[in-house]
Amino acid sequence: MAVRVVGFDGDDTLWHSETRFHMTQGEYRELLKRHVPDADVDARLAETEMKNLGIYGYGVKSFTLSMLETAIELTGGRIPAADLEVILGWGKRMLMEPTELLDHVEQTLKQIAGRYDLLLITKGDLFDQESKLARSGLGDLFLGVEIVSEKSVDSYQAILRRRGIAPGEFVMVGNSLRSDVVPVVTLGGQAVYIPYEVTWHHEHVPDDQLPRQGWRRIAAIGELPAVLEVL
Amino acid sequence: MAVRVVGFDGDDTLWHSETRFHMTQGEYRELLKRHVPDADVDARLAETEMKNLGIYGYGVKSFTLSMLETAIELTGGRIPAADLEVILGWGKRMLMEPTELLDHVEQTLKQIAGRYDLLLITKGDLFDQESKLARSGLGDLFLGVEIVSEKSVDSYQAILRRRGIAPGEFVMVGNSLRSDVVPVVTLGGQAVYIPYEVTWHHEHVPDDQLPRQGWRRIAAIGELPAVLEVL
Repeated sequence: MAVRVVGFDGDDTLWHSETRFHMTQGEYRELLKRHVPDADVDARLAETEMKNLGIYGYGVKSFTLSMLETAIELTGGRIPAADLEVILGWGKRMLMEPTELLDHVEQTLKQIAGRYDLLLITKGDLFDQESKLARSGLGDLFLGVEIVSEKSVDSYQAILRRRGIAPGEFVMVGNSLRSDVVPVVTLGGQAVYIPYEVTWHHEHVPDDQLPRQGWRRIAAIGELPAVLEVL
Repeated sequence: MAVRVVGFDGDDTLWHSETRFHMTQGEYRELLKRHVPDADVDARLAETEMKNLGIYGYGVKSFTLSMLETAIELTGGRIPAADLEVILGWGKRMLMEPTELLDHVEQTLKQIAGRYDLLLITKGDLFDQESKLARSGLGDLFLGVEIVSEKSVDSYQAILRRRGIAPGEFVMVGNSLRSDVVPVVTLGGQAVYIPYEVTWHHEHVPDDQLPRQGWRRIAAIGELPAVLEVL
Protein backbone atom coordinates (compact mmCIF):
# COMPACT_ATOMS: atom_id res chain seq x y z
CA MET A 1 0.00 0.00 0.00
CA ALA A 2 1.42 3.39 -0.95
CA VAL A 3 2.21 5.92 1.75
CA ARG A 4 -0.47 8.61 1.82
CA VAL A 5 -0.21 10.22 5.26
CA VAL A 6 2.92 11.22 7.19
CA GLY A 7 2.64 11.96 10.90
CA PHE A 8 5.24 14.14 12.61
CA ASP A 9 6.15 14.37 16.24
CA GLY A 10 6.77 17.99 17.33
CA ASP A 11 9.20 18.23 20.28
CA ASP A 12 12.77 17.40 19.22
CA THR A 13 11.60 16.27 15.79
CA LEU A 14 10.45 19.60 14.33
CA TRP A 15 11.55 22.02 17.06
CA HIS A 16 14.01 21.96 19.94
CA SER A 17 12.55 21.05 23.31
CA GLU A 18 14.65 18.71 25.40
CA THR A 19 17.76 20.91 25.25
CA ARG A 20 15.71 23.61 26.95
CA PHE A 21 14.67 21.28 29.73
CA HIS A 22 18.34 20.35 30.11
CA MET A 23 19.41 23.96 30.18
CA THR A 24 16.87 24.86 32.84
CA GLN A 25 17.75 21.76 34.81
CA GLY A 26 21.39 22.86 34.80
CA GLU A 27 20.44 26.19 36.35
CA TYR A 28 18.20 24.38 38.80
CA ARG A 29 21.04 22.08 39.86
CA GLU A 30 23.28 25.09 40.51
CA LEU A 31 20.60 26.84 42.53
CA LEU A 32 19.95 23.82 44.72
CA LYS A 33 23.64 22.99 45.21
CA ARG A 34 23.93 26.26 47.11
CA HIS A 35 21.48 24.92 49.70
CA VAL A 36 22.25 21.19 49.62
CA PRO A 37 25.74 20.69 48.16
CA ASP A 38 25.71 16.91 48.52
CA ALA A 39 22.29 16.17 47.07
CA ASP A 40 21.84 14.25 43.83
CA VAL A 41 19.52 16.87 42.41
CA ASP A 42 18.97 15.23 39.02
CA ALA A 43 18.08 11.85 40.47
CA ARG A 44 15.65 13.37 42.96
CA LEU A 45 13.99 15.52 40.34
CA ALA A 46 13.62 12.54 37.99
CA GLU A 47 12.06 10.58 40.84
CA THR A 48 9.57 13.35 41.57
CA GLU A 49 8.70 13.70 37.88
CA MET A 50 8.01 9.99 37.53
CA LYS A 51 5.92 9.95 40.71
CA ASN A 52 3.88 12.92 39.45
CA LEU A 53 3.46 11.76 35.84
CA GLY A 54 0.11 10.10 36.56
CA ILE A 55 -1.19 13.25 38.28
CA TYR A 56 0.31 16.04 36.18
CA GLY A 57 1.01 14.47 32.76
CA TYR A 58 3.78 15.82 30.51
CA GLY A 59 4.83 19.37 29.82
CA VAL A 60 6.52 22.47 31.14
CA LYS A 61 3.93 23.25 33.82
CA SER A 62 4.30 19.72 35.22
CA PHE A 63 8.08 20.07 35.12
CA THR A 64 7.90 23.40 36.97
CA LEU A 65 5.65 21.98 39.69
CA SER A 66 8.01 19.01 40.12
CA MET A 67 11.04 21.32 40.34
CA LEU A 68 9.31 23.30 43.10
CA GLU A 69 8.33 20.17 45.01
CA THR A 70 11.82 18.69 44.78
CA ALA A 71 13.43 21.95 45.88
CA ILE A 72 11.25 22.17 48.98
CA GLU A 73 11.79 18.51 49.86
CA LEU A 74 15.54 18.45 49.28
CA THR A 75 16.07 21.51 51.49
CA GLY A 76 13.68 20.31 54.17
CA GLY A 77 11.58 23.42 53.57
CA ARG A 78 14.54 25.77 54.13
CA ILE A 79 14.72 27.17 50.60
CA PRO A 80 13.65 30.83 50.57
CA ALA A 81 10.53 31.75 48.61
CA ALA A 82 12.60 34.10 46.49
CA ASP A 83 14.47 31.10 45.06
CA LEU A 84 11.19 29.35 44.32
CA GLU A 85 10.09 32.48 42.50
CA VAL A 86 13.17 32.13 40.31
CA ILE A 87 12.09 28.57 39.46
CA LEU A 88 8.57 29.80 38.60
CA GLY A 89 10.22 32.31 36.28
CA TRP A 90 12.18 29.57 34.49
CA GLY A 91 8.92 27.76 33.76
CA LYS A 92 7.42 30.89 32.23
CA ARG A 93 10.55 31.53 30.22
CA MET A 94 10.37 28.03 28.75
CA LEU A 95 6.71 28.58 27.81
CA MET A 96 7.40 31.91 26.14
CA GLU A 97 10.59 31.14 24.25
CA PRO A 98 10.35 31.37 20.48
CA THR A 99 9.89 28.03 18.73
CA GLU A 100 13.30 27.13 17.38
CA LEU A 101 13.02 24.76 14.42
CA LEU A 102 15.59 22.04 13.83
CA ASP A 103 17.74 22.40 10.70
CA HIS A 104 16.05 21.77 7.34
CA VAL A 105 12.60 21.23 8.89
CA GLU A 106 10.84 23.93 6.96
CA GLN A 107 12.30 23.04 3.55
CA THR A 108 11.64 19.34 4.06
CA LEU A 109 8.02 19.81 5.10
CA LYS A 110 7.38 22.15 2.19
CA GLN A 111 8.97 19.67 -0.14
CA ILE A 112 6.73 16.76 0.87
CA ALA A 113 3.51 18.63 1.73
CA GLY A 114 2.26 18.50 -1.87
CA ARG A 115 2.80 14.77 -2.07
CA TYR A 116 1.48 13.49 1.25
CA ASP A 117 -1.05 14.61 3.84
CA LEU A 118 0.88 15.79 6.88
CA LEU A 119 -0.36 15.42 10.45
CA LEU A 120 1.25 16.78 13.59
CA ILE A 121 0.88 14.19 16.36
CA THR A 122 2.41 15.36 19.58
CA LYS A 123 2.00 14.69 23.25
CA GLY A 124 2.19 17.06 26.15
CA ASP A 125 0.38 20.12 27.29
CA LEU A 126 -2.40 21.18 24.89
CA PHE A 127 -2.00 24.90 25.44
CA ASP A 128 1.78 24.88 25.20
CA GLN A 129 1.85 22.70 22.07
CA GLU A 130 -0.73 24.84 20.24
CA SER A 131 1.20 27.92 21.20
CA LYS A 132 4.47 26.41 19.93
CA LEU A 133 2.89 25.37 16.66
CA ALA A 134 1.42 28.83 16.16
CA ARG A 135 4.85 30.41 16.76
CA SER A 136 6.57 27.88 14.48
CA GLY A 137 4.94 29.23 11.32
CA LEU A 138 4.40 25.63 10.15
CA GLY A 139 0.68 25.44 10.93
CA ASP A 140 -0.55 25.73 7.34
CA LEU A 141 1.51 22.76 6.17
CA PHE A 142 -0.46 20.33 8.33
CA LEU A 143 -3.80 18.91 7.35
CA GLY A 144 -4.49 18.27 11.02
CA VAL A 145 -3.07 18.50 14.51
CA GLU A 146 -3.52 15.86 17.18
CA ILE A 147 -2.34 16.55 20.70
CA VAL A 148 -2.59 13.48 22.90
CA SER A 149 -1.80 12.89 26.54
CA GLU A 150 0.08 9.66 25.76
CA LYS A 151 1.28 8.09 22.49
CA SER A 152 0.07 4.52 22.73
CA VAL A 153 -1.26 1.91 20.32
CA ASP A 154 -4.77 2.98 21.38
CA SER A 155 -4.25 6.67 20.83
CA TYR A 156 -2.71 6.14 17.37
CA GLN A 157 -5.49 3.74 16.46
CA ALA A 158 -8.12 6.28 17.47
CA ILE A 159 -6.50 8.95 15.31
CA LEU A 160 -6.19 6.71 12.24
CA ARG A 161 -9.77 5.45 12.56
CA ARG A 162 -11.26 8.88 13.06
CA ARG A 163 -9.44 10.16 9.99
CA GLY A 164 -10.07 7.10 7.84
CA ILE A 165 -6.39 6.22 7.43
CA ALA A 166 -5.35 2.58 6.97
CA PRO A 167 -2.22 1.70 8.99
CA GLY A 168 -0.54 0.55 5.77
CA GLU A 169 -0.68 4.02 4.25
CA PHE A 170 0.66 5.76 7.37
CA VAL A 171 4.24 6.64 8.32
CA MET A 172 5.15 8.25 11.64
CA VAL A 173 8.30 10.37 11.92
CA GLY A 174 9.80 11.15 15.30
CA ASN A 175 12.69 11.07 17.73
CA SER A 176 11.24 8.63 20.24
CA LEU A 177 11.38 4.87 19.74
CA ARG A 178 8.90 4.46 22.57
CA SER A 179 6.33 7.02 21.42
CA ASP A 180 6.77 7.37 17.67
CA VAL A 181 8.05 4.00 16.47
CA VAL A 182 6.94 1.05 18.62
CA PRO A 183 3.18 1.76 18.85
CA VAL A 184 2.85 2.66 15.16
CA VAL A 185 4.72 -0.41 13.94
CA THR A 186 2.64 -2.55 16.33
CA LEU A 187 -0.46 -1.25 14.57
CA GLY A 188 0.86 -2.18 11.14
CA GLY A 189 2.08 1.26 10.16
CA GLN A 190 5.65 2.27 9.38
CA ALA A 191 7.97 4.67 11.18
CA VAL A 192 11.05 6.75 10.57
CA TYR A 193 13.21 7.35 13.61
CA ILE A 194 15.38 10.47 13.74
CA PRO A 195 17.42 10.46 16.97
CA TYR A 196 17.78 13.80 18.70
CA GLU A 197 20.97 14.88 20.44
CA VAL A 198 19.37 14.45 23.87
CA THR A 199 16.67 11.97 24.79
CA TRP A 200 14.70 11.94 28.01
CA HIS A 201 15.46 8.69 29.85
CA HIS A 202 11.74 7.96 30.05
CA GLU A 203 11.66 7.52 26.26
CA HIS A 204 14.36 4.83 26.01
CA VAL A 205 13.43 1.35 24.78
CA PRO A 206 15.72 -1.67 25.31
CA ASP A 207 17.04 -3.05 22.01
CA ASP A 208 15.37 -6.43 22.46
CA GLN A 209 11.96 -4.77 22.68
CA LEU A 210 12.30 -2.99 19.36
CA PRO A 211 10.33 -4.21 16.34
CA ARG A 212 12.49 -6.07 13.81
CA GLN A 213 11.04 -4.33 10.80
CA GLY A 214 8.60 -1.63 9.77
CA TRP A 215 10.88 1.24 10.74
CA ARG A 216 14.09 2.95 9.64
CA ARG A 217 16.58 5.23 11.27
CA ILE A 218 17.86 8.35 9.53
CA ALA A 219 20.32 10.93 10.81
CA ALA A 220 18.44 14.08 9.89
CA ILE A 221 15.07 15.17 8.55
CA GLY A 222 16.65 16.20 5.24
CA GLU A 223 16.92 12.49 4.36
CA LEU A 224 13.19 11.97 4.79
CA PRO A 225 11.88 12.71 1.25
CA ALA A 226 14.15 10.06 -0.29
CA VAL A 227 13.23 7.50 2.37
CA LEU A 228 9.50 8.09 1.89
CA GLU A 229 9.89 7.28 -1.80
CA VAL A 230 11.08 3.78 -1.07
CA LEU A 231 8.79 2.83 1.83
CA MET B 1 -32.92 20.90 10.19
CA ALA B 2 -33.35 18.26 12.89
CA VAL B 3 -30.94 18.11 15.78
CA ARG B 4 -28.55 15.21 15.27
CA VAL B 5 -25.55 15.97 17.49
CA VAL B 6 -25.49 17.31 21.05
CA GLY B 7 -22.26 18.71 22.46
CA PHE B 8 -21.71 18.86 26.20
CA ASP B 9 -19.36 20.99 28.20
CA GLY B 10 -17.70 19.05 31.05
CA ASP B 11 -16.74 21.29 33.99
CA ASP B 12 -19.81 22.50 35.91
CA THR B 13 -22.15 21.07 33.27
CA LEU B 14 -21.57 17.35 33.80
CA TRP B 15 -19.32 17.38 36.88
CA HIS B 16 -18.49 19.81 39.65
CA SER B 17 -15.39 21.89 39.10
CA GLU B 18 -15.70 25.54 40.08
CA THR B 19 -16.86 24.76 43.63
CA ARG B 20 -13.55 22.96 44.12
CA PHE B 21 -11.57 25.95 42.95
CA HIS B 22 -13.63 28.06 45.34
CA MET B 23 -13.04 25.68 48.20
CA THR B 24 -9.29 25.63 47.62
CA GLN B 25 -9.27 29.39 47.21
CA GLY B 26 -10.97 29.70 50.59
CA GLU B 27 -8.18 27.71 52.24
CA TYR B 28 -5.62 29.74 50.32
CA ARG B 29 -7.14 33.01 51.55
CA GLU B 30 -6.95 31.79 55.15
CA LEU B 31 -3.34 30.69 54.74
CA LEU B 32 -2.25 34.02 53.27
CA LYS B 33 -4.21 36.10 55.78
CA ARG B 34 -1.87 34.75 58.45
CA HIS B 35 1.04 36.43 56.67
CA VAL B 36 -0.64 39.49 55.15
CA PRO B 37 -3.86 40.20 57.07
CA ASP B 38 -4.79 43.28 55.05
CA ALA B 39 -4.22 41.93 51.56
CA ASP B 40 -7.06 41.46 49.09
CA VAL B 41 -6.00 37.92 48.30
CA ASP B 42 -8.82 37.12 45.88
CA ALA B 43 -8.29 40.22 43.79
CA ARG B 44 -4.54 39.67 43.59
CA LEU B 45 -4.93 36.03 42.67
CA ALA B 46 -7.48 36.88 39.96
CA GLU B 47 -5.05 39.47 38.59
CA THR B 48 -2.21 36.94 38.47
CA GLU B 49 -4.44 34.35 36.82
CA MET B 50 -5.51 36.78 34.09
CA LYS B 51 -1.92 37.89 33.52
CA ASN B 52 -0.81 34.27 33.20
CA LEU B 53 -3.71 33.00 31.06
CA GLY B 54 -1.83 33.61 27.81
CA ILE B 55 1.22 31.74 29.13
CA TYR B 56 -0.32 28.91 31.14
CA GLY B 57 -3.81 28.44 29.70
CA TYR B 58 -6.65 27.05 31.84
CA GLY B 59 -6.64 24.27 34.40
CA VAL B 60 -5.57 23.16 37.84
CA LYS B 61 -1.82 23.23 37.15
CA SER B 62 -2.09 26.82 35.93
CA PHE B 63 -4.17 27.72 38.99
CA THR B 64 -1.59 26.13 41.31
CA LEU B 65 1.29 28.02 39.67
CA SER B 66 -0.65 31.28 39.96
CA MET B 67 -1.42 30.62 43.64
CA LEU B 68 2.29 30.08 44.32
CA GLU B 69 3.30 33.22 42.45
CA THR B 70 0.69 35.35 44.21
CA ALA B 71 1.68 33.99 47.63
CA ILE B 72 5.33 34.84 47.09
CA GLU B 73 4.54 38.30 45.75
CA LEU B 74 1.98 39.23 48.40
CA THR B 75 4.35 38.28 51.22
CA GLY B 76 7.36 39.93 49.61
CA GLY B 77 9.05 36.53 49.52
CA ARG B 78 8.59 35.99 53.28
CA ILE B 79 6.24 33.01 53.04
CA PRO B 80 7.98 29.82 54.26
CA ALA B 81 8.52 27.05 51.74
CA ALA B 82 6.49 24.73 53.95
CA ASP B 83 3.39 26.83 53.23
CA LEU B 84 4.11 26.72 49.52
CA GLU B 85 4.34 22.96 49.82
CA VAL B 86 0.82 22.99 51.28
CA ILE B 87 -0.36 24.90 48.19
CA LEU B 88 1.34 22.36 45.90
CA GLY B 89 -0.56 19.66 47.81
CA TRP B 90 -3.90 21.41 47.19
CA GLY B 91 -3.22 21.33 43.48
CA LYS B 92 -2.55 17.61 43.56
CA ARG B 93 -5.63 17.01 45.66
CA MET B 94 -7.77 18.82 43.07
CA LEU B 95 -6.28 16.71 40.29
CA MET B 96 -6.88 13.44 42.13
CA GLU B 97 -10.36 14.03 43.54
CA PRO B 98 -13.05 11.69 42.26
CA THR B 99 -15.19 13.16 39.48
CA GLU B 100 -18.42 14.21 41.16
CA LEU B 101 -21.28 14.30 38.67
CA LEU B 102 -24.04 16.88 38.92
CA ASP B 103 -27.52 15.57 39.76
CA HIS B 104 -29.35 13.63 37.03
CA VAL B 105 -26.41 13.78 34.59
CA GLU B 106 -26.04 10.06 34.14
CA GLN B 107 -29.76 9.33 33.65
CA THR B 108 -30.18 12.23 31.24
CA LEU B 109 -27.20 11.27 29.08
CA LYS B 110 -28.33 7.65 28.97
CA GLN B 111 -31.81 8.77 28.03
CA ILE B 112 -30.69 10.82 25.02
CA ALA B 113 -27.65 8.81 23.90
CA GLY B 114 -29.74 6.51 21.73
CA ARG B 115 -31.39 9.42 19.97
CA TYR B 116 -28.51 11.81 19.30
CA ASP B 117 -24.75 11.56 18.83
CA LEU B 118 -23.12 12.98 21.96
CA LEU B 119 -19.82 14.85 21.97
CA LEU B 120 -17.88 16.09 24.96
CA ILE B 121 -16.38 19.47 24.12
CA THR B 122 -14.41 20.87 26.98
CA LYS B 123 -11.58 23.30 27.48
CA GLY B 124 -8.71 23.17 29.88
CA ASP B 125 -5.85 20.86 30.57
CA LEU B 126 -5.81 17.82 28.27
CA PHE B 127 -4.41 15.40 30.82
CA ASP B 128 -6.71 16.51 33.63
CA GLN B 129 -9.84 16.46 31.47
CA GLU B 130 -9.13 12.98 30.10
CA SER B 131 -8.48 11.77 33.60
CA LYS B 132 -11.76 13.30 34.85
CA LEU B 133 -13.72 11.75 32.00
CA ALA B 134 -12.17 8.34 32.67
CA ARG B 135 -13.11 8.60 36.35
CA SER B 136 -16.64 9.84 35.52
CA GLY B 137 -17.74 6.52 34.03
CA LEU B 138 -19.47 8.45 31.21
CA GLY B 139 -16.86 7.78 28.52
CA ASP B 140 -18.84 5.17 26.61
CA LEU B 141 -21.82 7.48 26.12
CA PHE B 142 -19.83 9.88 23.96
CA LEU B 143 -19.16 9.34 20.29
CA GLY B 144 -16.17 11.63 20.60
CA VAL B 145 -14.22 13.87 22.94
CA GLU B 146 -12.76 17.23 21.97
CA ILE B 147 -10.49 19.05 24.38
CA VAL B 148 -9.67 22.54 23.20
CA SER B 149 -7.52 25.27 24.66
CA GLU B 150 -10.19 27.93 24.03
CA LYS B 151 -13.86 27.69 22.99
CA SER B 152 -14.13 30.13 20.13
CA VAL B 153 -16.06 30.35 16.86
CA ASP B 154 -12.96 28.99 15.13
CA SER B 155 -12.48 26.05 17.43
CA TYR B 156 -16.16 25.01 17.19
CA GLN B 157 -16.07 25.43 13.42
CA ALA B 158 -13.01 23.20 13.17
CA ILE B 159 -14.73 20.48 15.21
CA LEU B 160 -17.96 20.59 13.21
CA ARG B 161 -16.12 20.54 9.87
CA ARG B 162 -13.80 17.73 10.83
CA ARG B 163 -16.76 15.65 11.95
CA GLY B 164 -19.05 16.57 9.06
CA ILE B 165 -21.70 18.21 11.24
CA ALA B 166 -23.80 21.07 9.83
CA PRO B 167 -24.26 23.89 12.38
CA GLY B 168 -28.04 23.54 11.97
CA GLU B 169 -28.00 20.00 13.31
CA PHE B 170 -25.82 20.84 16.33
CA VAL B 171 -26.83 21.88 19.85
CA MET B 172 -24.26 22.77 22.52
CA VAL B 173 -25.14 22.36 26.20
CA GLY B 174 -23.14 24.13 28.87
CA ASN B 175 -22.92 26.49 31.81
CA SER B 176 -20.98 29.29 30.14
CA LEU B 177 -22.63 31.94 27.97
CA ARG B 178 -19.20 33.00 26.79
CA SER B 179 -17.83 29.57 25.88
CA ASP B 180 -20.84 27.34 25.20
CA VAL B 181 -23.55 29.68 23.90
CA VAL B 182 -22.23 32.75 22.08
CA PRO B 183 -19.71 31.11 19.69
CA VAL B 184 -22.08 28.25 18.76
CA VAL B 185 -25.03 30.55 18.07
CA THR B 186 -22.72 32.81 16.07
CA LEU B 187 -21.91 29.83 13.86
CA GLY B 188 -25.57 29.06 13.22
CA GLY B 189 -25.91 26.29 15.78
CA GLN B 190 -28.17 26.25 18.82
CA ALA B 191 -27.34 26.19 22.51
CA VAL B 192 -28.87 25.27 25.83
CA TYR B 193 -27.55 27.22 28.79
CA ILE B 194 -27.67 25.61 32.24
CA PRO B 195 -26.33 28.08 34.82
CA TYR B 196 -24.15 26.61 37.55
CA GLU B 197 -24.26 27.80 41.14
CA VAL B 198 -20.87 29.52 40.81
CA THR B 199 -19.44 31.05 37.65
CA TRP B 200 -15.89 32.25 37.17
CA HIS B 201 -15.92 35.99 36.55
CA HIS B 202 -13.95 35.46 33.35
CA GLU B 203 -16.94 33.64 31.81
CA HIS B 204 -19.51 36.43 32.26
CA VAL B 205 -21.05 38.10 29.20
CA PRO B 206 -22.89 41.44 29.40
CA ASP B 207 -26.58 41.09 28.57
CA ASP B 208 -26.40 43.36 25.54
CA GLN B 209 -23.79 41.11 23.96
CA LEU B 210 -25.93 37.99 24.14
CA PRO B 211 -27.55 36.62 20.98
CA ARG B 212 -31.28 37.32 20.75
CA GLN B 213 -32.22 33.84 19.66
CA GLY B 214 -30.80 30.41 18.99
CA TRP B 215 -30.39 29.51 22.65
CA ARG B 216 -32.49 28.65 25.71
CA ARG B 217 -31.91 28.63 29.41
CA ILE B 218 -32.95 25.70 31.57
CA ALA B 219 -32.54 25.25 35.32
CA ALA B 220 -31.18 21.72 35.35
CA ILE B 221 -29.98 19.03 32.97
CA GLY B 222 -33.09 16.92 33.68
CA GLU B 223 -35.07 19.37 31.52
CA LEU B 224 -32.82 18.77 28.52
CA PRO B 225 -34.57 15.82 26.80
CA ALA B 226 -37.85 17.72 26.56
CA VAL B 227 -36.12 20.85 25.26
CA LEU B 228 -34.21 18.92 22.60
CA GLU B 229 -37.52 17.61 21.25
CA VAL B 230 -38.74 21.10 20.41
CA LEU B 231 -35.52 22.65 19.08
